[in-house]
Amino acid sequence: MAFDSIETPFDKIAKTVGGAATYICHAAANLTEDINLVSVVGEDFPDEDIQKLQVKGVNTDGLQIKKGEKTFYWSGKYHLDMNTRDTLVTELNVLGDFDPVLPISYRNPDLLMLGNLSPRIQKNVIEQLNKRPGLIAMDTMNFWIENENEMLLQAISLVDVLIINDEEARELTRKSSLVKAAREIQAFGPKYVIIKKGEHGALLFHGKDVFVAPALPLEEVFDPTGAGDTFAGGFTGYLAATKDTTYENLKRAVIYGSVMASFCVEEFGTKRLENIAQEELRSRVNDFINLVRFDMQLEVKS
Amino acid sequence: MAFDSIETPFDKIAKTVGGAATYICHAAANLTEDINLVSVVGEDFPDEDIQKLQVKGVNTDGLQIKKGEKTFYWSGKYHLDMNTRDTLVTELNVLGDFDPVLPISYRNPDLLMLGNLSPRIQKNVIEQLNKRPGLIAMDTMNFWIENENEMLLQAISLVDVLIINDEEARELTRKSSLVKAAREIQAFGPKYVIIKKGEHGALLFHGKDVFVAPALPLEEVFDPTGAGDTFAGGFTGYLAATKDTTYENLKRAVIYGSVMASFCVEEFGTKRLENIAQEELRSRVNDFINLVRFDMQLEVKS
Repeated sequence: MAFDSIETPFDKIAKTVGGAATYICHAAANLTEDINLVSVVGEDFPDEDIQKLQVKGVNTDGLQIKKGEKTFYWSGKYHLDMNTRDTLVTELNVLGDFDPVLPISYRNPDLLMLGNLSPRIQKNVIEQLNKRPGLIAMDTMNFWIENENEMLLQAISLVDVLIINDEEARELTRKSSLVKAAREIQAFGPKYVIIKKGEHGALLFHGKDVFVAPALPLEEVFDPTGAGDTFAGGFTGYLAATKDTTYENLKRAVIYGSVMASFCVEEFGTKRLENIAQEELRSRVNDFINLVRFDMQLEVKS
Repeated sequence: MAFDSIETPFDKIAKTVGGAATYICHAAANLTEDINLVSVVGEDFPDEDIQKLQVKGVNTDGLQIKKGEKTFYWSGKYHLDMNTRDTLVTELNVLGDFDPVLPISYRNPDLLMLGNLSPRIQKNVIEQLNKRPGLIAMDTMNFWIENENEMLLQAISLVDVLIINDEEARELTRKSSLVKAAREIQAFGPKYVIIKKGEHGALLFHGKDVFVAPALPLEEVFDPTGAGDTFAGGFTGYLAATKDTTYENLKRAVIYGSVMASFCVEEFGTKRLENIAQEELRSRVNDFINLVRFDMQLEVKS
């Protein structure tokens, strides 16, 4: 959980509430109610934003609030194309020595979503569980690929789904073909690999199969911050709601992840995710169905 | 029609037969038989490659063979990512003063596909027709956007479908959002806009609707040369075979264009397009259907 200061070519906002856990929980809470949050903030973090999660059914017993310390802070500026950005400031603050402690009531989850963080901490969380969940998904980023590569490979070997973006997949495996990169990651351990391609959608790899999920073509992206985390939250939220971890259902979960991400980018921070009516959600899912729907007859040349 | 010398990170070939018309005809001839070719070559162009088209049912009455002159020549080298390339040599040769003359038998086509060439020549071809075809599609490239902008806009205003890649669409309209770029191109005249995104697939815009067609995720791209022309050939070939220019059928045509392009990149030049068995075609179309297929229940949260 974090404070983000964000500048886009169109607007800017100072110290809005963000962070992987925040986006993941807000996205998932639109789909399921039984969510246990593990994270850390400083005493500067607004009570109000914790309450926003609680009223949506998120259990915050696993959220540490560090007296006298400050919340993680990130500041970034997007380029004109909105696909690339410069990081201006990173202050680890409470994240510097974060030691997550899972409450007893958290230790038998059906699903575990490990947001982007040090692979050492991700592994530590898995080790605190009493039993293996039905599915473990994890996200990561280039910083850990470059600085904690060995520990990252250990963490990856323990999960069922790695969620990663295209550039990170290439960097992790040193393969330029995303198909080859995914095969290599599958060989590290995960049965499923999801490669996020931003405005170009996402690929879900399973065995030798690939599923291509589109992104919604948008006239305007207001703020892409948190879209990847939101995707992960929509994905795992859908799996939790449907209690089904088959490949067919993971495809649908990828669509729900993409749906949530399409809402996320419409406003700064988690604002849009906090207010999605069920009717809007249904309508947006329908947009995604129509985006790729075609009826094919297989015979052409007579 | 052209000679291409191509170097990829993996292999190279000197003076293989290529060119928009060649790729378009080979791709379309896998789907339909009634194709009339308009193009120009020098006397150095191999008879054998003209015959390859003729045996597939391509009428070459509109192909000018210029005695004592040389065929258009292009040479390029792909970067490691295979998405970008440097042009090393361009020799216009016979294309320098190409003046297409449509044989009488060509002047009432059901469909017209204008391959990438000077918009002045594209317009000239349209003006030689006796009646407006059921559908006119055209391709273009950055060179014409930069050097014959006004003539290009005139040509675009005359067609039903503009096929263009993402960077060209942005350059033509000065809009970074592809949705906005497509809307602007629609305002220039075309009812349909197809934006090709290479390995990320293609977008078909019609009115306020968008259809997203995937590209086949490939382990290896052997040679991307001609993939865009091949897409155009598969697209129009399918429309010609099915005699149906509704939006629903254009979606299917975009899939067939993508299918043909996925074959094209497997070998140098038009080699792979010359030898596609009906069973291989059917199987590849099926791969594309499976790539995006999911069954969605719309209700989630209870």
